Amino acid sequence: MTEPTRIEADYLIETAFDPRQAVEVMAGEQSSGTFVPVPGETPELKERSAARIESLEVVEELREPSLPGAGRPKTGEPVYKRARVTLSWPFANLGASLPNLMATVAGNLFELKQFSGLRILDIRLPHAFAEAYPGPKFGVAGTRRLTGVEGRPLIGTIIKPSVGFGPEETASLTKLLCEAGIDFIKDDELQADGPHCPFEERARAVMRVINDHAEHTGKKVMYALNITGDLDEMRRRHDLVRGLGGTSIMASLNSVGLVGMIELGRFSELPIHAHRNGWGYLSRAPLLGWSYVAWQKIWRLAGADHMHVNGLGNKFCEEDESVIASARACLTPMFADKPCIAMPVFSSGQSAKQAPGTFAALGSTDLIYAAGGGIMAHPDGPAAGVASLREAWEAATSGVPLADYAKDRPALAKALGAYAG
Amino acid sequence: MTEPTRIEADYLIETAFDPRQAVEVMAGEQSSGTFVPVPGETPELKERSAARIESLEVVEELREPSLPGAGRPKTGEPVYKRARVTLSWPFANLGASLPNLMATVAGNLFELKQFSGLRILDIRLPHAFAEAYPGPKFGVAGTRRLTGVEGRPLIGTIIKPSVGFGPEETASLTKLLCEAGIDFIKDDELQADGPHCPFEERARAVMRVINDHAEHTGKKVMYALNITGDLDEMRRRHDLVRGLGGTSIMASLNSVGLVGMIELGRFSELPIHAHRNGWGYLSRAPLLGWSYVAWQKIWRLAGADHMHVNGLGNKFCEEDESVIASARACLTPMFADKPCIAMPVFSSGQSAKQAPGTFAALGSTDLIYAAGGGIMAHPDGPAAGVASLREAWEAATSGVPLADYAKDRPALAKALGAYAG
Repeated sequence: MTEPTRIEADYLIETAFDPRQAVEVMAGEQSSGTFVPVPGETPELKERSAARIESLEVVEELREPSLPGAGRPKTGEPVYKRARVTLSWPFANLGASLPNLMATVAGNLFELKQFSGLRILDIRLPHAFAEAYPGPKFGVAGTRRLTGVEGRPLIGTIIKPSVGFGPEETASLTKLLCEAGIDFIKDDELQADGPHCPFEERARAVMRVINDHAEHTGKKVMYALNITGDLDEMRRRHDLVRGLGGTSIMASLNSVGLVGMIELGRFSELPIHAHRNGWGYLSRAPLLGWSYVAWQKIWRLAGADHMHVNGLGNKFCEEDESVIASARACLTPMFADKPCIAMPVFSSGQSAKQAPGTFAALGSTDLIYAAGGGIMAHPDGPAAGVASLREAWEAATSGVPLADYAKDRPALAKALGAYAG
Repeated sequence: MTEPTRIEADYLIETAFDPRQAVEVMAGEQSSGTFVPVPGETPELKERSAARIESLEVVEELREPSLPGAGRPKTGEPVYKRARVTLSWPFANLGASLPNLMATVAGNLFELKQFSGLRILDIRLPHAFAEAYPGPKFGVAGTRRLTGVEGRPLIGTIIKPSVGFGPEETASLTKLLCEAGIDFIKDDELQADGPHCPFEERARAVMRVINDHAEHTGKKVMYALNITGDLDEMRRRHDLVRGLGGTSIMASLNSVGLVGMIELGRFSELPIHAHRNGWGYLSRAPLLGWSYVAWQKIWRLAGADHMHVNGLGNKFCEEDESVIASARACLTPMFADKPCIAMPVFSSGQSAKQAPGTFAALGSTDLIYAAGGGIMAHPDGPAAGVASLREAWEAATSGVPLADYAKDRPALAKALGAYAG
């Protein structure tokens, strides 16, 4: 566990210039820098506040730039050097402020003409950040306690189609899912408080079903109601859900933003299910933007209990290796005395099939395994869909191949047939 | 002025598949969609809530994909078609909610396997959004009233080196700049409330100088103090600045995020100077992320009075054409009865030289023209630096070439020599 005294950030950069000189510009821009000397500037002031290059390692050379707009030396054919770089900043430049951390480690630098590629890979923070922010209030242990699920992933689903349903239709589907044995349900990220399906009516209708089911069976299904909205709306909706006996709220990170999520992290008395929609625009160009490993730390510190990580063999563009790196990051402690572990949420095209691969790569069952079609489109219906996922995880954690485990388990057997594609 | 009844968004997409089929997936994902039919789904529900393809025009074909990870047809050499697409959504899917608008127009779609490129170009909103959000409370007229500057741009600067100065050093430099005739000063985005330069001390020291200068000269320099921080900190700092007689506060959009900026827009009694640091990671890959034309509308509606747009011949990667499109967008009304105009802020490597080109391209002086070295590094000092910028804008608006106008104006003449590079 590294708890540095300075703020540290790792980057992948690409430049046609001398890498060290380019990175010096980057360090200057993000600390003491302007491009001309100004009155009052002294070597002492610079030393006190300057960002420092901790390491720089060229890893690759290319003939073509990854991004347009970068400069190149005036003579010769340019060679674009990719390098891994670590910068550090004095803590006293900004103090323990997450919003100001953003401007420091991920501010103007992405636009510097020196770079034809720049991506932030990781950050490491002094302990003062752990003292200044709450981190997840529930995390894995709290989520397991509220759902009563131990020793295996929570089996979850999403209520779609996202915006076609009214409150009663949502509640009917919730009833079906509760009876199917689901552990966790979430609203779609497109479903918040639209006139088609007002939040309050939906929350009341859904919680009536959830509470009824809990009364009859002892099993309280966790429903993450999407409270995304303006701050007063989020407060009101949170209080309503808590008052109705709900056990989770959901918020879209890129819609709410950092200061809103920090507020939510402070006032929430329920696990925060953090949705990452919009993540694609932050990450999909390989030499630009954010690695999830860096990004998720900020939201965990702000209080996110569950973090979306996509899933193996997903319907999106992300490679499996990247998905697993994201999930591992969520389960890696941030500080020795305050690990801030968030439960990774696997979703997108998930069915029984991906359970063994997910377990083998992650080595943990501390996750939410969410399937849409993987449950609803099971040939024998949603109950068989949920059963097939539980059985797949039993097989995975027992080290038994799915096909073997499916021999006397028809739900799993039919799932393996139905989701073969 | 288009005020649609549905929510509209324009995109540039790139796909190896049939563009219409790919865009149908995108429309489905962002409204009624999952990839398998679910119980309760009816044609009526779908029609009520589905996103609609309003237009689709293929503009280019390429052999190579812009972004990795996309799918391609199973047979044949792929051809990547670029197309301009307009989607629309029923207003009732989400209502007048800016955070939920984000999830709808800029959510999961960037990761869809169908696309090797996807960028949001513009958005158009029903009038209900104008009713739900404040928009800029000051804008151009309010900023001119508070500074007393009419008929020309505000001449502004940034106090750097950003984190080397303490409060007294910042105040000394402020004094120098006031005496140099500056209209507007802003904190650096890396300067908020770090232990090196605590906000309250800096605000008090700076405002003492600004108020003294106003008392002696009648000219109140606008100083945008960077209040970026957690919500309670931003409230406290805003109230302090207002109490001290300050006339502007600054916030970093990507650090604060949307819900925090909406709150700030609601409670602020001062013009909000909105800094876009981090914009590079949202925009620098040409076939990914956000066009500024789309992005700035969201922040204007939330209440941003001044929006950074970079500058002509800037030190970053952005082309001049893009800078001007951004500035024009800020000056283009959003709604007939609520234009929400924000004052564009030109900065980055600006000096007297770019004034004529900026005026010619924009056709307006409703802007803040901010220079660092262009003022501080003038051979005859900051007063000559400020004078050279004013003179350059006089020349530009009079249609006189800079070199002619400089003949009997030494400040401008020396600037043209010093910043020739």
